Amino acid sequence: MSINYQQILNEIVEETQYLTGKGKVADYIPELAKVSPNQFGIFLQMMDGSSYHVGAAHTQFAIQSISKVFSLSLAVSLLGEKVWERVDVEPSGTAFNSLLQLEYEKGIPRNPFINAGALVVIDMLISELKKPKEDLMDYIRMLAGKNEVHINKKVAHSEKQHGFRNAAVANLLKDFGNIHNKVEDVLDLYFDMCSIEMNCAELSQTFKMFANHGVLPGTEKQILTRSQTKRQNALMQSCGFYDESGEFTFTVGLPGKSGVGGGIVALFPEQFTITVWSPLLNEKGNSIKGMKALELFTTKSELSLF
Amino acid sequence: MSINYQQILNEIVEETQYLTGKGKVADYIPELAKVSPNQFGIFLQMMDGSSYHVGAAHTQFAIQSISKVFSLSLAVSLLGEKVWERVDVEPSGTAFNSLLQLEYEKGIPRNPFINAGALVVIDMLISELKKPKEDLMDYIRMLAGKNEVHINKKVAHSEKQHGFRNAAVANLLKDFGNIHNKVEDVLDLYFDMCSIEMNCAELSQTFKMFANHGVLPGTEKQILTRSQTKRQNALMQSCGFYDESGEFTFTVGLPGKSGVGGGIVALFPEQFTITVWSPLLNEKGNSIKGMKALELFTTKSELSLF
Amino acid sequence: MSINYQQILNEIVEETQYLTGKGKVADYIPELAKVSPNQFGIFLQMMDGSSYHVGAAHTQFAIQSISKVFSLSLAVSLLGEKVWERVDVEPSGTAFNSLLQLEYEKGIPRNPFINAGALVVIDMLISELKKPKEDLMDYIRMLAGKNEVHINKKVAHSEKQHGFRNAAVANLLKDFGNIHNKVEDVLDLYFDMCSIEMNCAELSQTFKMFANHGVLPGTEKQILTRSQTKRQNALMQSCGFYDESGEFTFTVGLPGKSGVGGGIVALFPEQFTITVWSPLLNEKGNSIKGMKALELFTTKSELSLF
Amino acid sequence: MSINYQQILNEIVEETQYLTGKGKVADYIPELAKVSPNQFGIFLQMMDGSSYHVGAAHTQFAIQSISKVFSLSLAVSLLGEKVWERVDVEPSGTAFNSLLQLEYEKGIPRNPFINAGALVVIDMLISELKKPKEDLMDYIRMLAGKNEVHINKKVAHSEKQHGFRNAAVANLLKDFGNIHNKVEDVLDLYFDMCSIEMNCAELSQTFKMFANHGVLPGTEKQILTRSQTKRQNALMQSCGFYDESGEFTFTVGLPGKSGVGGGIVALFPEQFTITVWSPLLNEKGNSIKGMKALELFTTKSELSLF
Repeated sequence: MSINYQQILNEIVEETQYLTGKGKVADYIPELAKVSPNQFGIFLQMMDGSSYHVGAAHTQFAIQSISKVFSLSLAVSLLGEKVWERVDVEPSGTAFNSLLQLEYEKGIPRNPFINAGALVVIDMLISELKKPKEDLMDYIRMLAGKNEVHINKKVAHSEKQHGFRNAAVANLLKDFGNIHNKVEDVLDLYFDMCSIEMNCAELSQTFKMFANHGVLPGTEKQILTRSQTKRQNALMQSCGFYDESGEFTFTVGLPGKSGVGGGIVALFPEQFTITVWSPLLNEKGNSIKGMKALELFTTKSELSLF
Repeated sequence: MSINYQQILNEIVEETQYLTGKGKVADYIPELAKVSPNQFGIFLQMMDGSSYHVGAAHTQFAIQSISKVFSLSLAVSLLGEKVWERVDVEPSGTAFNSLLQLEYEKGIPRNPFINAGALVVIDMLISELKKPKEDLMDYIRMLAGKNEVHINKKVAHSEKQHGFRNAAVANLLKDFGNIHNKVEDVLDLYFDMCSIEMNCAELSQTFKMFANHGVLPGTEKQILTRSQTKRQNALMQSCGFYDESGEFTFTVGLPGKSGVGGGIVALFPEQFTITVWSPLLNEKGNSIKGMKALELFTTKSELSLF
Repeated sequence: MSINYQQILNEIVEETQYLTGKGKVADYIPELAKVSPNQFGIFLQMMDGSSYHVGAAHTQFAIQSISKVFSLSLAVSLLGEKVWERVDVEPSGTAFNSLLQLEYEKGIPRNPFINAGALVVIDMLISELKKPKEDLMDYIRMLAGKNEVHINKKVAHSEKQHGFRNAAVANLLKDFGNIHNKVEDVLDLYFDMCSIEMNCAELSQTFKMFANHGVLPGTEKQILTRSQTKRQNALMQSCGFYDESGEFTFTVGLPGKSGVGGGIVALFPEQFTITVWSPLLNEKGNSIKGMKALELFTTKSELSLF
Repeated sequence: MSINYQQILNEIVEETQYLTGKGKVADYIPELAKVSPNQFGIFLQMMDGSSYHVGAAHTQFAIQSISKVFSLSLAVSLLGEKVWERVDVEPSGTAFNSLLQLEYEKGIPRNPFINAGALVVIDMLISELKKPKEDLMDYIRMLAGKNEVHINKKVAHSEKQHGFRNAAVANLLKDFGNIHNKVEDVLDLYFDMCSIEMNCAELSQTFKMFANHGVLPGTEKQILTRSQTKRQNALMQSCGFYDESGEFTFTVGLPGKSGVGGGIVALFPEQFTITVWSPLLNEKGNSIKGMKALELFTTKSELSLF
């Protein structure tokens, strides 16, 4: 059976119409609160090279936590298994006790996609890389297959002005000895990375490597080993959506990663990557339309892992 | 490429040899502590009907928490979406704060595979079924395709003599109004169900329905809808291994369910079900050899979802 | 300066008038919810034998947690220091994590006045006494100096019908090995004891021993040693008001104990005991008028320990 | 009966001999770890002006958390009841969940003597005072009745180099809006204050105001109102010893405050103040010999509040 993907995307736009205006944009920093709330785009990238899109699929937005996939991938390619001595691979449970868990588990973050874990990964990159910021940006540009990947400096500045909770987490990690560099330097690179801007098309392109067993598409370059790639995808499945990871697995059934900018990337190994973007979030910080769009996509296409 | 499954199983036996004697059997009740610790069996059931096995694949053991998959499946087929009003679908985080989470979330268990969630599911069955215990056993017999599925009465009796923590959980649920029947009746059926004995071959057979989009193999009987089946599998992926669910997803990459009797069942939709059994457990209550065996199986066969 | 106590009590009635109707009666069991809400009484018992009272000082009410002072006192007189091997002497922090603390501290309750601690004390009495219920009642009658102390059987029955949270706590304690007798027997005596009815005059009389260095007033009978008495009073100061113990110390500055029946007893060693009763409670389960009345009493009389 | 205080102090030295060498000095910063561990001094200051002492009663040590009594007292005298809008008066329960409680209670610290609470109090002082550091030091000098009260700059520097946990707490408070000034400035003054050095004699002198209903001894200057003084003493009783506040109340029965430098000050209103110092601490961070010395003192003198 051949699937009419364009029609599916069109149907999704229609069938999520009722959610327009529901939720609220991230407003913990003024820069993010400025986004026009009702934008909505989808970009589906098949592994055979074909692609489909609807709506604002080429509008830039702050990728926020989606970037944590890139920093982890780079750390794994540099350090291999040693990454997992400083960060665990378990889902994090309810958000309310994140600091409790960090204390109870003596500074080992539950996984690399919660903020604590991402901060430890950034600390690893600072220790390993000569020019951490440029090297990380270059790595992302390589995955994206283009030189034009930039940090939104206003967003980065705004993050740094209001990042007290992340500073609390980083200091607690430092107290446990799980940050090796200066707290300020770790926070600085972390906020820069979260402020990278990309669009749906670019993100779908950038994630192709993860759906391609670790090989950079169009090349023979093995960025991650087959096993490392499998594990990174498994982590996105277990831990990609904060305290809604179970819900996403349950209703969508694909590995993915969301960000408070309203973007979500998901993928099916060997088949496709897909990015949705809509800035209005639910209480758990995930895009309302984005979650529904991906649920509809896997239901309509019957392309779920389970 | 055709895979030599028998050889893979043989290799696994050899390559897990070094773990023999590591870990300890469940000893919270005397009956479970009596098991001979170094037994080890695997039964691989392909969806095309062929099968492979090694070791003690036909020795009976207490399936314990694996049974929670059956009670949930029956509840979903009776109540549909209403199940999710009384139990959530999120992984549970660290074990140490299970009662905290139950209090914080006002009596809604994190998922149906932690004890609290399974007790609520049992309560649903008692409300819905005429003869809860017989009806549940008949349902399992139907999935197993045989009439010979029994409860080990000594184990059940032993569980009931020492089940104070489960009694604590059930009473807390009752206090929150999320147990509708008598606490004693819920605990009674719960302990009976956990004391069911099966072997690797039978469990692999019984789980085929979940790898078959909800259709009872060899029939056209739709036990669960396609969507319900997908979701049940997704839940096994997210929540099947207590606080090691992330680890199992990370290293094995298949949906599955473990029990403190030392059994683990895993499955790949449309491809196979596989059961391993070895009674020596790690600190998190999962079979040490079983976990390693499945990791080796997906590595060697390259049959992971991710 | 001689203090006009009767005038102070009269003023308190007037100055707490504005609180009439504020708060709500304990309604977790139907029997307690039936009480007429706006009753208010105070009974001040001076150690020289004189006494003063206003309002409903001779109306019976369920003393509830105030009874925990008597069971602890009896356990200490039977077991001495060994009591403190099974229960701690620290305030309990916020109520919401009571079960968490019990888990974290491996079944040792924070203090004997939270429910967990009182259940352990009751368990000690069952182990030590021939006829636990009668012996405990006789002990209380001895302190009260009268034979007429009774259990309200309707309240006790109602407690037993709705005591799921206490059953949860008792089962958790049993799981940790800190309940030695049958959970049912412990709960049974606990609920009976909480359902004892007394009035303000009787309670003030019964607490005189604690303000008298352990000697039964009017006799030379040493019920507790001087040191044991000091410590029991210290415990009332630290832990007598659940999560409002700090607030009570801060505003009233006397050792005391409250119950959800709306009663509060406080005392000043060598000087007086005082009981207030008003059934309308604040969110933390303490009598609103009672707390204010005692704050006014220590302010007006300048009789605070600090 | 007249009490021979000097003899009591001498006996205490003898009877605590067996504890010499038990415990360990605070070593979270190198400067504190340098202290000679077996020093021991007591200074008893009667309110009638007489005094008694033994041992190293005139040796300077870092007063650490004892200083929190002074900053709170100054804040109360500046802001009155408004202090209690930003910090509570309840004991803190177990240390392990301090960050949990702060999150659960939305940034309102449990009391002003845990670090979180003291940081909020320091923030109040920075907002209210023209020259916060000098003004605070002048206030302490006034209470001490001497100009020679100094900060140990090496200790302060060491604190600032290792203060990551306090930085975590301060950032979390800032995130909740309960720090109004710069996090760096709050930490800076906090660490300076903790690094003040005094000896037993000076501390006993400085605390006299609290045992004197708020009047500066030898003057008619009312530093705190009678009611404010009562409440400050009550707070020391409830919350002065971290997670051992109940234990201290239970065994000693006086309001007091300890510091990780090994000092403890306690007082009996209208009667005396007493300071003990011995740097070897128990697991909860309180001086082992100091705790025992005060228990012996109240037992021998029968001067307990209860």
